[in-house]
Amino acid sequence: MIVELVSVGTEILLGNIVNTNAKYLAEECALLGCSQFYQTVVGDNEKRLEAVLKTALERSDIVITTGGLGPTKDDLTKEVTASVLGLKLVEDTNTVHRINALFAGLDIKEIPQSNYKQAMVMENCIVLDNDNGTAPGMIAEKDGKAIILLPGPPNEMIPLFNEKVKPYLKSKSNEVIYSVMVKLSGIGESSAAEIIDDLIESQTNPTIAPYAKTSEVHLRITAKAKDEETAKAMTLPLLDEVKKRLGQYIYTIDEGETLEQALIKVLKELNLTLSTAESCTGGLLSGRIINVSGASEVFKEGFVTYSNEAKEKTLNVPHEILSEYGAVSSQTAEAMAKSCALAAGTDVGIATTGIAGPDGGTIEKPVGLVYIACYYKGKTTVEKYNFKGNRAKIREVAVAKAIDLARRAVKSEKQ
Amino acid sequence: MIVELVSVGTEILLGNIVNTNAKYLAEECALLGCSQFYQTVVGDNEKRLEAVLKTALERSDIVITTGGLGPTKDDLTKEVTASVLGLKLVEDTNTVHRINALFAGLDIKEIPQSNYKQAMVMENCIVLDNDNGTAPGMIAEKDGKAIILLPGPPNEMIPLFNEKVKPYLKSKSNEVIYSVMVKLSGIGESSAAEIIDDLIESQTNPTIAPYAKTSEVHLRITAKAKDEETAKAMTLPLLDEVKKRLGQYIYTIDEGETLEQALIKVLKELNLTLSTAESCTGGLLSGRIINVSGASEVFKEGFVTYSNEAKEKTLNVPHEILSEYGAVSSQTAEAMAKSCALAAGTDVGIATTGIAGPDGGTIEKPVGLVYIACYYKGKTTVEKYNFKGNRAKIREVAVAKAIDLARRAVKSEKQ
Repeated sequence: MIVELVSVGTEILLGNIVNTNAKYLAEECALLGCSQFYQTVVGDNEKRLEAVLKTALERSDIVITTGGLGPTKDDLTKEVTASVLGLKLVEDTNTVHRINALFAGLDIKEIPQSNYKQAMVMENCIVLDNDNGTAPGMIAEKDGKAIILLPGPPNEMIPLFNEKVKPYLKSKSNEVIYSVMVKLSGIGESSAAEIIDDLIESQTNPTIAPYAKTSEVHLRITAKAKDEETAKAMTLPLLDEVKKRLGQYIYTIDEGETLEQALIKVLKELNLTLSTAESCTGGLLSGRIINVSGASEVFKEGFVTYSNEAKEKTLNVPHEILSEYGAVSSQTAEAMAKSCALAAGTDVGIATTGIAGPDGGTIEKPVGLVYIACYYKGKTTVEKYNFKGNRAKIREVAVAKAIDLARRAVKSEKQ
Repeated sequence: MIVELVSVGTEILLGNIVNTNAKYLAEECALLGCSQFYQTVVGDNEKRLEAVLKTALERSDIVITTGGLGPTKDDLTKEVTASVLGLKLVEDTNTVHRINALFAGLDIKEIPQSNYKQAMVMENCIVLDNDNGTAPGMIAEKDGKAIILLPGPPNEMIPLFNEKVKPYLKSKSNEVIYSVMVKLSGIGESSAAEIIDDLIESQTNPTIAPYAKTSEVHLRITAKAKDEETAKAMTLPLLDEVKKRLGQYIYTIDEGETLEQALIKVLKELNLTLSTAESCTGGLLSGRIINVSGASEVFKEGFVTYSNEAKEKTLNVPHEILSEYGAVSSQTAEAMAKSCALAAGTDVGIATTGIAGPDGGTIEKPVGLVYIACYYKGKTTVEKYNFKGNRAKIREVAVAKAIDLARRAVKSEKQ
């Protein structure tokens, strides 16, 4: 089944927003086993939109549009699609009720009439009720093909796609795709790819493909079959082989689990608490950990000791260490990790200190030099890195490495 | 002048990467006064790429492609473009030297032959030397139109575009675009738009357009003229009018300046130091402030007091306040801001405490409730917000509001 994406919106053509909808839909459609050969962006212009829709419908089976379903006169996607398919627009009573209910909740007396424009739908189409906005989505079929209209805001588009379009696309396909995501950290993409190069090259169904993420490598194993059970069974031998070869780097095979969630999970399992002491990452490390809902059970306190003064006063890093080895040193990182665990009364302490640049680098201590330390059970592990990139990138990678160091330190104890 | 973007790459069609190149080029072309009606994404496929390039060349003056210039046999953009334009490929001696020099620096003895594929360029084209990779860009003109080929990696594409394509596009245009960005915080997009609605509606040259950012509104004033001086002069009366109406919300008219840079700047001017105490934002506030290079002159220390225990022990928030009003309260925020300034010995202290969700909300204290406080010169200002969105969004907006509160508190003192 060939799917084609058409993003409607002058704001994309002007570069005001990034077209994340296209990325989202492209990935989801690929996972459903749909082929995709083209994506088009077109503005809110009747003639050009009409031409794009006609071309897309000629060369693909299903066209998915995003955007242009709003209440203003600039919003034309529905009207143009109806004209391309030769369909009339009719009022959808259910959508009228939905709009009334939405506005009732907002305590607005008079509903702007323009909103009822959104209650007009193509005749005989499948109306996709939008729980997060006024504009409904629509699926209009004709001659074995279909145009699917989705609203532009991602918080409306994504739930509508997942809940209503995905089942529709699945029902149109005679194949099921099952995939499992193996997430690794502590190894680079090219090293990981080398270890499983023969698997990447030789496999056609299931397939395995590596994706480089910040300080992580994700491997997606995908199988196609007639039903989910068969497809899932097909992925298992390959998954076992990957576990055999790369097991020490795998932190999860749960697609929804992040590195910080994996850390929180192992800490919870072992009933351990955590604190952080940050210099160059300046709070981003605790910030990322705390983005896990429920982190409060584990994470107690963080210290952003950016100045030497704060390192001495708040963390009791000995003055001699700072003056002899400098703030960016293995010794300082070690002292910070241990002191924060003691000060916060936690089992584990993680610390970062480094030179994020663009200024402050020297020949001995260049921009990108970062020390990461983890204190746990009386022992402190320190790792030294030379990261590349700009200030934001160096800090982002340092945060990922720090989370992974803590995860590995605690995990090794568990095993 | 009509410009059209063609992004070449199967990885975009599979949704493996977001097409940030298209956003970048779209914005830059709009600023150069070029019109854009279509963007297309197509895979590394000869026939389809050929069809897309032909269509684009028919309906636009200049086609800019990104991607498909690499050394592998999948990379086809140059070959297909040459065939569409009826041009031969010839070896570019300069690129051969450039590739040799690049590999010499890498200490690799034998250069893979495939790299020399990249030294083949279209006859009579303008070769754009790429300082950050092996593949050169190219501008090939024919019959008053042009196809511009750029490499896909943004760190190669962006410098090539800025240094070599931008001057080319400017030379093709008989107009100059000058624009100034007015950045506001502390006011919403619709409120700001309402205040300058007549200016938005009535102006055609110069124009003014609002853009909503996280907790900020940006207004771009743009003028077209024959030369930059004239265009710049045309923006001034409109800029004055905007300053008159919205001056209290403007934090900068320097496009490159961020809200956190504006805060650091005013603190430096007044020779003040800063510390933070964070609960729900968990380090993201200090993390964002420290992303400003040179923040160390101003920012001394941050406390991530996530648990009540940490709030009491590290920040000396009175137990009675926590037990009577709760951790998420105006009183706790106030105590945190004051205590962190005292503990860190800084002039200014900023604090956040709130419920970022998805759990932990109650009827009295729903998810999204956030208190932000700023202590300065013996006075603490507390602001209460009810933010919408998921956990990450609530924390992001809270950080922005906290930075702005500090900026306003200090600034008001200055004036």
